[in-house]
Amino acid sequence: MLELIKFGIALTLIYTSKHYSPLLAAVGLSIVGYVVCDFLIPRVGPHFIKIGRFGKDLSKPGRPIIPETVGAVPATVYIFIMFFNIPFLFYKYLVVMTSGGGHRDVSIEETPGEIFFPHAKLSEYLSAVLCLQSTALLGIADDLFDLRWRHKFFLPAVAAIPLLTVYYVDFGVTYVLIPDFAKNWLNITKSAVNLGPLYYGYMSSVAIFCPNSINILAGVNGLEVGQSIVLSLIFLINDTLYLLFGAEASQDSHKLSAILIIPFLGVSLALWKWNRWPAKVFVGDTYCYFAGMIFSVVGILGHFSKTALLFFIPQIFNFAYSCPQLFGLVPCPRHRLPRFNEMDGLMYPSRAEFSTKPPKSVMKPVFRVLEFFKLIHIEYDTKTGEMVNCTNMTLINLVLVWFGPMREDILCNTILALQFAIGLTAIAARHALGTLIFGHDNLNIL
Amino acid sequence: MLELIKFGIALTLIYTSKHYSPLLAAVGLSIVGYVVCDFLIPRVGPHFIKIGRFGKDLSKPGRPIIPETVGAVPATVYIFIMFFNIPFLFYKYLVVMTSGGGHRDVSIEETPGEIFFPHAKLSEYLSAVLCLQSTALLGIADDLFDLRWRHKFFLPAVAAIPLLTVYYVDFGVTYVLIPDFAKNWLNITKSAVNLGPLYYGYMSSVAIFCPNSINILAGVNGLEVGQSIVLSLIFLINDTLYLLFGAEASQDSHKLSAILIIPFLGVSLALWKWNRWPAKVFVGDTYCYFAGMIFSVVGILGHFSKTALLFFIPQIFNFAYSCPQLFGLVPCPRHRLPRFNEMDGLMYPSRAEFSTKPPKSVMKPVFRVLEFFKLIHIEYDTKTGEMVNCTNMTLINLVLVWFGPMREDILCNTILALQFAIGLTAIAARHALGTLIFGHDNLNIL
Repeated sequence: MLELIKFGIALTLIYTSKHYSPLLAAVGLSIVGYVVCDFLIPRVGPHFIKIGRFGKDLSKPGRPIIPETVGAVPATVYIFIMFFNIPFLFYKYLVVMTSGGGHRDVSIEETPGEIFFPHAKLSEYLSAVLCLQSTALLGIADDLFDLRWRHKFFLPAVAAIPLLTVYYVDFGVTYVLIPDFAKNWLNITKSAVNLGPLYYGYMSSVAIFCPNSINILAGVNGLEVGQSIVLSLIFLINDTLYLLFGAEASQDSHKLSAILIIPFLGVSLALWKWNRWPAKVFVGDTYCYFAGMIFSVVGILGHFSKTALLFFIPQIFNFAYSCPQLFGLVPCPRHRLPRFNEMDGLMYPSRAEFSTKPPKSVMKPVFRVLEFFKLIHIEYDTKTGEMVNCTNMTLINLVLVWFGPMREDILCNTILALQFAIGLTAIAARHALGTLIFGHDNLNIL
Repeated sequence: MLELIKFGIALTLIYTSKHYSPLLAAVGLSIVGYVVCDFLIPRVGPHFIKIGRFGKDLSKPGRPIIPETVGAVPATVYIFIMFFNIPFLFYKYLVVMTSGGGHRDVSIEETPGEIFFPHAKLSEYLSAVLCLQSTALLGIADDLFDLRWRHKFFLPAVAAIPLLTVYYVDFGVTYVLIPDFAKNWLNITKSAVNLGPLYYGYMSSVAIFCPNSINILAGVNGLEVGQSIVLSLIFLINDTLYLLFGAEASQDSHKLSAILIIPFLGVSLALWKWNRWPAKVFVGDTYCYFAGMIFSVVGILGHFSKTALLFFIPQIFNFAYSCPQLFGLVPCPRHRLPRFNEMDGLMYPSRAEFSTKPPKSVMKPVFRVLEFFKLIHIEYDTKTGEMVNCTNMTLINLVLVWFGPMREDILCNTILALQFAIGLTAIAARHALGTLIFGHDNLNIL
């Protein structure tokens, strides 16, 4: 019954979008995506277990077996929703132009015979969906075959090829703005520099970074989906600002951004329902890559990938903070997720032991700085004063160091709240600093 | 070493395509696809077995275990090749237009400022790749979860949504030509009728039929790939005829057809090398769907889906011939593939036994007709004269009924030769009959 009401609202929104904005259709399809995923996820779970796609939840009493890779469901549903979205996205052009369009609700005056269907936009949209689908395909391959790090690290760049190709074909914009201070310093007058092919290298890096960074900030029920939901909200707030106050030129790219993110929010909320503590399903690398790629795509196509990276500060911090362990300067145990204590049901920071393998000596001053800023907890031998172990260097453990042991769901929510606060600050800073650095900002609020 | 030479030829072709035709790039990428697949297939096989994707080859002594779903490899390679193809496909437009294109080998005179990049063609191409990728994704889901017939039958139509949507947006051509005799009979003068939404139903049916029909004509080492290769050759012969003698208007769609099929031929030949008798790998539903969808896409986008169906006569015959068993009028054993005799190593027609469940009485006259035309072999009880069993109703068994028992590879090659002969006849008939039925043909040979 409730499902029917949801579907009713969704269909109404999709239908009325014809007369108003494609954003309404995106909201409608988002609801459809939520309902479909919410229906499918509990039903496909057992089939995933049957074909061997399952994992143990290490942070629960008895370590229950839980289906893995279920993130492939929202990814697939999202992609098919995006197919259905095409007619609504281009409705105002379709009714005037095509012969099969049925009743002609002419909303645009047109010189007869003149074709002005925005094929460039359609290519853009199709390449975005193609890139996301490639990401899903490679994510599934990773989940199935458990690819090695050195193979899978670059996979998102491969998946981004259609996007970059179409970017090349369609825009070819490869300049970046030069900050005012650099202009003065270099004594030049031009306000942008053309990076040429380097810009494609930069975009590939963004495509690699976002998916992998979401994949790394994981290990607590609901965190992968949760952070993607928070990122979606931050991106949508930023888009709303541009749609309300932005210059004409930036509106299109932020509308596209919202159209891509709103349905993603819908399918992610359904996955969140089943993946949040206590998790009934695991999302798998497929979902992490997919989610990260959505934000890359939006940033690259909208030409605001620098701003998009600002919203990834928690993930960037987590990656930078992890580097000493990832690159072997500090011993790195196989799992760095926090330790579950069955006695009180709380999560404690997990630790890297130095007994068999001490950290490299280059880390000594780094540890001192981290300890001073309370960014790590180190245990010392009471007799010798030697370091015995340190908390594993992930954002999750750090939150436990700061706020003390807590239940898994509270831990997840704390990280998400932190991430949301940082995101809001980033939006504010972006537009305050934008004016300072470039002499102008692309929002016209003042 | 040989690989290096192949790569050298491929790169030369791809490079020179800039000055000549995108068809050269397609041939070059086809060679790349062959080399890459030939490298990957034997290497990924063991990994497929490890994750449980394997099957027993029932037509070999000892029923060896063979990796299954390996067709996912050529499908993925093909898709990524098609990404790399985009710049070469649109090279002549790119060098004039984009800012990041490097040296400007201006091959086209252009009014400055006028943008004429063929975005409609790019959308078309992207939607084709998107549709094929969706098919691969759904094929993989089918291979992994072994979906039920009633679920998987319609999957290709779902995968075709992006194609149909873009067809709607881009062409919206929903008319079909009316044959001359019908014009006279109905006493009308217009030469085409607009089918409207019905035409989309028709295209969906084509998208469902082609993949499933290839999936059904299977059960002998190499047959799925072999028939796809033969189909590719027939399509390419037809395309060549149009490119040499066809009207201007039809050239574009047949060039696109060739550009999509040539690289497919490359990856399929590599798969054929490993899948032909004695098979080292099985292709899985993924490949069958994928192959079938290529021909659907080409037929639909090129607006020659009726001609395309002519080339599927062996598959259509196999489907129609199978219907009595598929719909339960004749008992249908779980496997209908021919029976392997370990003594002489030959394949014999397999049989449906009537002892537990006799065929429906409506089949009596049908059997009589089939028997008269030697389209089936029926065994009778020597005492009562009752039917005891009949050969299973597939094209494979029928070939064994006609030509007697043979080795598996000869059986496969016989079917392929038959298919090729029928295809050539279909091309000839299409253009001879085209003139008779429509009063004109779209080739200008005479």
